Amino acid sequence: MFSSIRVKYSLILSSAKLVKRNYKGNHNAVELTKDRYKIKRNNYSVINDKDISFFENQIGKSYVVTNSDDIEGNNIDFLRSCRGNSQLLLKPKNEIEISQILKYCYSRNLAVCPQGGNTGLVGGSVPVFDEIIISLQRLNEIYSVDEITGIITCGSGCILENLENEAKNHGLRFPLDLGAKSTCQIGGNASTNAGGLRVIRYGSLHGSILGIETVLASGNILDLMSNFKKDNTGYHLKHLFIGCEGTLGIITKVAVLCPAISSSINVAFIALPSFEAVLKTFVKAKKYLGEILSACELIDEISFKRSVETFNLNPPISGYPFYMLIETSGSNNKHDEEKFNIFLNNGMENGEILDGTFTGEPGKISEIWKIRELVPVSLIEDGYCFKYDISLPLRDFYKIVLVMRERMKNFDVDVCGYGHIGDSNLHLNVACKGFSQDIYRKIEPFVFEYTSKLKGSVSAEHGIGFLKTKYLPFSKSDEAINLMRNIKTMLDPKNILNPYKVLPQE
Amino acid sequence: MFSSIRVKYSLILSSAKLVKRNYKGNHNAVELTKDRYKIKRNNYSVINDKDISFFENQIGKSYVVTNSDDIEGNNIDFLRSCRGNSQLLLKPKNEIEISQILKYCYSRNLAVCPQGGNTGLVGGSVPVFDEIIISLQRLNEIYSVDEITGIITCGSGCILENLENEAKNHGLRFPLDLGAKSTCQIGGNASTNAGGLRVIRYGSLHGSILGIETVLASGNILDLMSNFKKDNTGYHLKHLFIGCEGTLGIITKVAVLCPAISSSINVAFIALPSFEAVLKTFVKAKKYLGEILSACELIDEISFKRSVETFNLNPPISGYPFYMLIETSGSNNKHDEEKFNIFLNNGMENGEILDGTFTGEPGKISEIWKIRELVPVSLIEDGYCFKYDISLPLRDFYKIVLVMRERMKNFDVDVCGYGHIGDSNLHLNVACKGFSQDIYRKIEPFVFEYTSKLKGSVSAEHGIGFLKTKYLPFSKSDEAINLMRNIKTMLDPKNILNPYKVLPQE
Repeated sequence: MFSSIRVKYSLILSSAKLVKRNYKGNHNAVELTKDRYKIKRNNYSVINDKDISFFENQIGKSYVVTNSDDIEGNNIDFLRSCRGNSQLLLKPKNEIEISQILKYCYSRNLAVCPQGGNTGLVGGSVPVFDEIIISLQRLNEIYSVDEITGIITCGSGCILENLENEAKNHGLRFPLDLGAKSTCQIGGNASTNAGGLRVIRYGSLHGSILGIETVLASGNILDLMSNFKKDNTGYHLKHLFIGCEGTLGIITKVAVLCPAISSSINVAFIALPSFEAVLKTFVKAKKYLGEILSACELIDEISFKRSVETFNLNPPISGYPFYMLIETSGSNNKHDEEKFNIFLNNGMENGEILDGTFTGEPGKISEIWKIRELVPVSLIEDGYCFKYDISLPLRDFYKIVLVMRERMKNFDVDVCGYGHIGDSNLHLNVACKGFSQDIYRKIEPFVFEYTSKLKGSVSAEHGIGFLKTKYLPFSKSDEAINLMRNIKTMLDPKNILNPYKVLPQE
Repeated sequence: MFSSIRVKYSLILSSAKLVKRNYKGNHNAVELTKDRYKIKRNNYSVINDKDISFFENQIGKSYVVTNSDDIEGNNIDFLRSCRGNSQLLLKPKNEIEISQILKYCYSRNLAVCPQGGNTGLVGGSVPVFDEIIISLQRLNEIYSVDEITGIITCGSGCILENLENEAKNHGLRFPLDLGAKSTCQIGGNASTNAGGLRVIRYGSLHGSILGIETVLASGNILDLMSNFKKDNTGYHLKHLFIGCEGTLGIITKVAVLCPAISSSINVAFIALPSFEAVLKTFVKAKKYLGEILSACELIDEISFKRSVETFNLNPPISGYPFYMLIETSGSNNKHDEEKFNIFLNNGMENGEILDGTFTGEPGKISEIWKIRELVPVSLIEDGYCFKYDISLPLRDFYKIVLVMRERMKNFDVDVCGYGHIGDSNLHLNVACKGFSQDIYRKIEPFVFEYTSKLKGSVSAEHGIGFLKTKYLPFSKSDEAINLMRNIKTMLDPKNILNPYKVLPQE
């Protein structure tokens, strides 16, 4: 019943192109953040000609952008949820220039918004008002690749896909992988503690990133670079900056530990009758595929249809309520295939797996992955999408999709769920024609209250950014938020680094 | 040439018993820390009868220990390097009682020393002067084990080996393993970011520990418990406490993610002609054993001899300059054995592996592990041992042992090296008859200067504790140490939590 995939995709667009295309939309259609979300500007200075001259002298005229057309793409986020009104985009080349910029901004009380690939989904990577955008794109050098230890050191502006390719050239596998890899930058990944598809195998960036260099609000450069998995010399400061979303420092360099590349990669795309069968299949995947399991993704019927129909994909199977994409990465293909067969046969015999396809051919693997990777893009293709990225106890993992679907039945929306079930991480989406306050208010704060009741996390991997600050208390105690504030005040007393983000307004 | 092991150990003592025996030695032979290291007491209050009464009322008379004989074991560290002079040992039962104790100590300006299993190797777990010892041993409840997600939540006083057994009962493998597991506690492990034998496979505790609860110096309880691998809600605060060595908070609860247990475990103990061969073998282990590699240990000739001779072991092979213990854990024994065979044959054919033994039998595996696990105990059995736990670039990993041996040639000492080569972590040891200032000064600060020159870490997994504070600057910049100080001041303004530890005296 399981065979190598034979489908042909009539049209395969790379996620990369789609991501880029979205930046070119009609910007004026996006409301300014300050209007849509009704928030008040902090009392920062406003840039003047003297400031511009200073920056031009420091980093060179061609890296100081003031033309608003050229800045517009940097003012709007990927989801078109947020639109800032920055008048100045700086493109420094290294940590020294960033240090000079921040020292100056600190003394002048000018707010800044650090920006990587601007692929964030919570409005964290674009300014809210007129913050100066500091692009990291020129910090894109790969400094070293150590084939013995597997450590890559590089600038924070390196594009994830480039790092993946460089790793591959040295027999290594970059431990982070996500849909936006052709555009996102490793510094942004680190700042947001990006999760993605392979956390189940390689863990989070808190483990993979061995060292970072970051520039503080004061302009001081904090060198926490390390080439060691084990380094117990004092407080583990790097973790403060991994996931701080640019509010405590601007990451300029990282050292990333990469595992050896797997010579054998296999993927199964399977259909399941119920969420209960999904859960059983996940537990069995851990048991039978154990150490070779490298991705375990869930796609529900609506997510599947949106992806397939929007991009005219020709999927190997269709017509089922649930699908899973299960990937293994190992060092011996014969062994891996054998393990996969035992796992799949067991699932078929027990009625948990209804149908599916299994392949080890790279071209076909990438076709299968597209079904999953194009889901998020398909949901925003012809309108707007309210996106929720939550961690939930596995037993209650899918119930929220059904509850939300019932709740939204009077609206013209698609409610669907997909995501990294192997990490208890659900992407709950409500896709609609356009942003609507009615829909917005029907979903929020309900979705966060519901998540909180199940002791889930209101942001699994996307972060808090601008859009979720007021929901932080649903997942964090007052004591914890208080400590966050104290840390923020200690490191950035004037609150010039990515303001209005992460911490709730007081 | 490779066969299942056939040796018999005439006498196998468990590490546990050895650890415990050491606590019962002649305590008066150990100099007080304040005399040996000539340091000055901070200006804390001194406990009085009123304080004792307060504590007796709060936690019960039988948990307030004032008899100095009963406290003596808690005043001296495992290595007999440090001896405090505490007059009061408290044994609270939960985070509420610890909160009450700290609130009181904070108001009275009384310093405290949190203590787990007291198996630390840098003098971090015993008082320096008369700090009140807060034992965590009664927080030893396992709250829950989730077989689907693999998450165990428990009190910080749980003994590591008990957690390992509980995990096993639920089809899980506890991700941390180290020599002191029969005595050490998970809270102490978390506070010191203990590394151990399986970091190469399961990563560090920063990844495995999903949530913690900690009591701050103010007595406030900070609840950072989480059951999710992905939880990007604000700053990742837990990492501040993992590895803070009890100086920022007292950990009272943890949630630990455990992988599925491996049905197949195999171990090879091999002999190698040179360090170059060791390095090549490590790289090949990553390549051929890839995802099943779960330990990769190095033992040099002197370490091997000390262990074997001290405990009358009957090792399967002997007479070589280097040994490696390589362990795999997988889900299919046939596959694992096949991979191991390919790896070992390759090494033998290329002359990197000279001889060895290979086994999958649990009893024999544990006999082999004893050769490695008894090395540290054998080095302190009849005297004193200066222990250094450093991370070094692999290319220069072993050179420091040779350099140190040459440097110490006029002393009656054994200089040896062993450790977790898979994590670039070397245990450099200088074993001698007893502590001597001459030997001490010949080794330090040289060993740290040398490590620093190679950009290594002066403490890979043991931490800074009391013994290494002045060497912290060899691995951390002024800017980093400054930030650590600011964090310490923010969280513990009166410096009552485990003073004289981690941060260098100003």
